[in-house]
Amino acid sequence: MTQKISPEQAPLLKRGASEILLERDLTERLAEARPLRVKAGFDPTAPDLHLGHVVLLQKLRGFQDLGHDVIFLIGDFTGMIGDPTGKNVTRKPLTREEIAENARSYEMQVFKVLNRDRTEVRFNSEWFDKMSAAELVKLAAQQTVARMLERDDFDKRYNSGQSISIHEFLYPLVQGYDSVALKADIELGGTDQKFNLLVGRELQKHYGQRPQIVMTMPLLEGTDGIQKMSKSLGNYVGIDEPPDQMFGKIMSISDTLMWRYYELLSSRGLDEIASMRRETERGANPRDTKLALAKELVARFHGGAEAGERAMRDFLARFQRHEMPEQIPQIEMSAADGPLSVVVALKSSGLTKSTSEAIRKIKEGGVRVDGQRIEDASATLRAGDSVVLQLGKRSFVRIVVR
Amino acid sequence: MTQKISPEQAPLLKRGASEILLERDLTERLAEARPLRVKAGFDPTAPDLHLGHVVLLQKLRGFQDLGHDVIFLIGDFTGMIGDPTGKNVTRKPLTREEIAENARSYEMQVFKVLNRDRTEVRFNSEWFDKMSAAELVKLAAQQTVARMLERDDFDKRYNSGQSISIHEFLYPLVQGYDSVALKADIELGGTDQKFNLLVGRELQKHYGQRPQIVMTMPLLEGTDGIQKMSKSLGNYVGIDEPPDQMFGKIMSISDTLMWRYYELLSSRGLDEIASMRRETERGANPRDTKLALAKELVARFHGGAEAGERAMRDFLARFQRHEMPEQIPQIEMSAADGPLSVVVALKSSGLTKSTSEAIRKIKEGGVRVDGQRIEDASATLRAGDSVVLQLGKRSFVRIVVR
Repeated sequence: MTQKISPEQAPLLKRGASEILLERDLTERLAEARPLRVKAGFDPTAPDLHLGHVVLLQKLRGFQDLGHDVIFLIGDFTGMIGDPTGKNVTRKPLTREEIAENARSYEMQVFKVLNRDRTEVRFNSEWFDKMSAAELVKLAAQQTVARMLERDDFDKRYNSGQSISIHEFLYPLVQGYDSVALKADIELGGTDQKFNLLVGRELQKHYGQRPQIVMTMPLLEGTDGIQKMSKSLGNYVGIDEPPDQMFGKIMSISDTLMWRYYELLSSRGLDEIASMRRETERGANPRDTKLALAKELVARFHGGAEAGERAMRDFLARFQRHEMPEQIPQIEMSAADGPLSVVVALKSSGLTKSTSEAIRKIKEGGVRVDGQRIEDASATLRAGDSVVLQLGKRSFVRIVVR
Repeated sequence: MTQKISPEQAPLLKRGASEILLERDLTERLAEARPLRVKAGFDPTAPDLHLGHVVLLQKLRGFQDLGHDVIFLIGDFTGMIGDPTGKNVTRKPLTREEIAENARSYEMQVFKVLNRDRTEVRFNSEWFDKMSAAELVKLAAQQTVARMLERDDFDKRYNSGQSISIHEFLYPLVQGYDSVALKADIELGGTDQKFNLLVGRELQKHYGQRPQIVMTMPLLEGTDGIQKMSKSLGNYVGIDEPPDQMFGKIMSISDTLMWRYYELLSSRGLDEIASMRRETERGANPRDTKLALAKELVARFHGGAEAGERAMRDFLARFQRHEMPEQIPQIEMSAADGPLSVVVALKSSGLTKSTSEAIRKIKEGGVRVDGQRIEDASATLRAGDSVVLQLGKRSFVRIVVR
């Protein structure tokens, strides 16, 4: 849908944002009545988008719905460098093939939210592969050490004596220069990206462009309601998770967190959400409100209203048949010393009294992981896994592996 | 002359050095009985070598005399970048033509000390022009911010709130990488270069080479006997200065400083210098010892013993005729607000009582600058100049312009 672009769009565009720098610039640029170039940068690593990312994607979609263009930028230049200090073995350099594959995987996922016709997918290797060392030196001259050490994470690491390699100081400049190369009108990111987004603003000024508007979006709490949603913390809802799993995870969040999710993820209007909230305060069952949220989100990521309805029916049926309790106790376990054996998880969680009992139960076919019966007693879980372990028909525990 | 290369050369090579890291490495490498690759880096800016540089050049010559090869490296890569912050207008990017001309000028000067046959002149643009931004990022990963902030000058600037641009952190890495590209066995520099030389050592290790030996040479005090010799401080003796001027400047140093110059600049053996020192302690006139030093240095930079003899004769004649006093008072003046008029210099130094007297004296032909009569009352001096201003036959003052 194409809309008349004007400063009147500003209130809608600003909804839910944490901060906008500068609001005045946004109004000014909307007054030009042309589609804005809205940039958002993404890691080139294997994407596994979760609801935390959806907050940002949904805001981008909001821009598109009002007639603006989104530039989905994949930062493959630094991805192809990997971790040059060699300290982080998991950050190996990515090949061009891996990056192309990750890009396809991104597209599969993000177009569940974004409008394909108003999205330009770009890679920053396009300009950085051509850049010489001399040009990078000139870029590096545009920022000071003191300014870089103001960034929260650098500041903490520096003051606690943790090492920062000099190339890490170059990465915000690389990201900032992307805005120059793309002539971005506005860049969106999480609140933790504010520093980097401002570097883009400064670099654009230096390169004779009008500085981009910076819009930060709140970070969504994970299902634990405490920490930022993240795959490595196991408190995430992946947008590619099967409908039942997604539905179940959303039903597991607290009533308080539910309102946060409504605010940041639902496409319902703020008025409607406020009125639902008043209803529950007057005694309506929050469980029904949560069902509606779970249904809406499953519908969005699994092909429409029918998928949402079906997931809800299944959830209620399972619940009524006591196949799965509404609230499942959650236990964190560590895979720091290697994969975590399911046998150990069964015993440590208290589902079985001993490892020998755990092995016997598996062999008898009495153990399920995320509803799938397992038969191999040597099965393991890995860091990042968040699975429901089930013993017999009645005993459930969610294992979050760190 | 070719010598048998062996660990027995070590004591001779070490003479006068401030520090050697590691001495063991030097002995080990000499044991390989092959010519070492001895690197020394130089700025690509217009060279005007003075005795401060000679300390280093003479040590390089010492290596050559024992059969080793010197790599005279001109750091033109950074010179062609200039000052990318644009704050320092005097550090404009140099063109290839300017660098070639500066290189020719270097060669004219350094081969008064170095042996041309054992000198390889190289430019670091040779490898850095080909380097991509990605490779520079990898290079930057090899050093930490904390380590860089240990460097004296960075530490001072950071702690006093003076800004350090990030590209300045890249320059020591650029210099260090030169040692990798050149496969240097040893790098020489002033004591103020120790940090940068050690970066080279570390980078070589990272790139799978044996780390270079680092040898630092003391910094020579200028004619004032206090600060490091430097053109901008006006306390220097340029190796291209006319014989009489060079002779006069050396005669102007203190008796204490004379011994330092002997130690660091003379080609006399340490034993001989020690015995000369004992002589003066027993009552020999230090003036004669200073004459011998001035004669030796003029001879070296002006084509041999005869030039030294002639300069000495001229000096003594001038002195006897009272044309020029042996000691000339020195006054510093500032050219911060633009060129310094000779008229102002005459009045400020007290040679004339007023600017009108100064103008009149110039018009009468009674004013000389470095022995040359001037007729133009609008003549000026510039920052870096160090000239003898003479009024009539008896009044002299040295003006050092900052």
